[in-house]
Amino acid sequence: MITVYGFSPSGNCHKVRLLLEQLGREYAWVETDSSQGATRTTEFLAKNPNGKVPFIELDDGRVLTESNAILCWLADGTPGFEGRFLPADSWQRAQALSWMFFEQYSHEPYIAVARFICGWTPLDSPRRADLPRLRERAHQALAVMERHLATMPWFTGETYGIADIALFAYSCVADHGGIRLDAYPAIRDWLARVARQPGFVPLPAPDAAAQGLIDKST
Amino acid sequence: MITVYGFSPSGNCHKVRLLLEQLGREYAWVETDSSQGATRTTEFLAKNPNGKVPFIELDDGRVLTESNAILCWLADGTPGFEGRFLPADSWQRAQALSWMFFEQYSHEPYIAVARFICGWTPLDSPRRADLPRLRERAHQALAVMERHLATMPWFTGETYGIADIALFAYSCVADHGGIRLDAYPAIRDWLARVARQPGFVPLPAPDAAAQGLIDKST
Repeated sequence: MITVYGFSPSGNCHKVRLLLEQLGREYAWVETDSSQGATRTTEFLAKNPNGKVPFIELDDGRVLTESNAILCWLADGTPGFEGRFLPADSWQRAQALSWMFFEQYSHEPYIAVARFICGWTPLDSPRRADLPRLRERAHQALAVMERHLATMPWFTGETYGIADIALFAYSCVADHGGIRLDAYPAIRDWLARVARQPGFVPLPAPDAAAQGLIDKST
Repeated sequence: MITVYGFSPSGNCHKVRLLLEQLGREYAWVETDSSQGATRTTEFLAKNPNGKVPFIELDDGRVLTESNAILCWLADGTPGFEGRFLPADSWQRAQALSWMFFEQYSHEPYIAVARFICGWTPLDSPRRADLPRLRERAHQALAVMERHLATMPWFTGETYGIADIALFAYSCVADHGGIRLDAYPAIRDWLARVARQPGFVPLPAPDAAAQGLIDKST
């Protein structure tokens, strides 16, 4: 059994849930509210010294951190599913990894952080001064994705896979951070294709408090 | 033949050079000064729309971006070297990838960016106001690495490999950003072990202008 420590509204955490659902694997979910300090307790830091969710824990106590590394392990290490969510060819696999590093370096720090600030910080937070810069960089990342999708239907290779899951996680809720997708028809089509994949589960909606803040921020 | 587009003082670019040297592979290097706008030209953006170095180009024109994805491809796709720089076991491989995602999300944006600001922006740049926050987060990342090295000699698995190359790139020049390693004896020992690996080549020293700025900033 795999135990996932995750915060349900987090796109990074949802990546893991989505792939586990699509693989049909059993798992336990330990809800861990990183917006309320649950990733900074002594007990949590003993498992993940980097103080972040998601991470997974196996029955023997072994731990794996970093959402995209977890996706790689699940895609690689699930008998019967080899090659389904991550290509076997080393060049195609590297292209998928390239998009996953792009996601963590050029996409998530802008789109996910803008969303977090809008929904999970007070309306008078000084972090809100960062929003214009974050939104500008978010649009740069989206433009790179739009350009790719003009020539290829997926980010993982010839079929849907873990690079699509990684990029879907926050692209699908970019509007929560005040980042509109009107200018990106190929991204909107790709989001709809992802949502039609077998076993798809949507990211849970923000709770009422977060939705209220989002409504006042965007 | 592999052509690397890179800026020699960049740790991200040096990762690719270091592994190519250690693999004994032939390559061409196209010096691309990202500090002077060379990654923002129309010609450059046609090859890498994300406007960053390094990337590699094969003779048939295929391109691979993202330093850590390039390391994965080189480690995987070099006949005779399988398993030497990236473990074959899927759990160990995922652990190495986890450190590489950690590097790009929790390490490079603080240690590399602090170094860039110190050495490659004017002394009156408004970006210098970010330095205290960047250094604080840099030390958080270094503390996570120090804790790992108390139990394991490498980040890639049982032997040296691409996760070590990824984390070495900027850890070895943290002092350029005013981030001292005095409190991290295990990191200092690991840096020395990396530098003793066969085929090791050091990161080029900053040029006189950058070194002058670094001296005045740290």
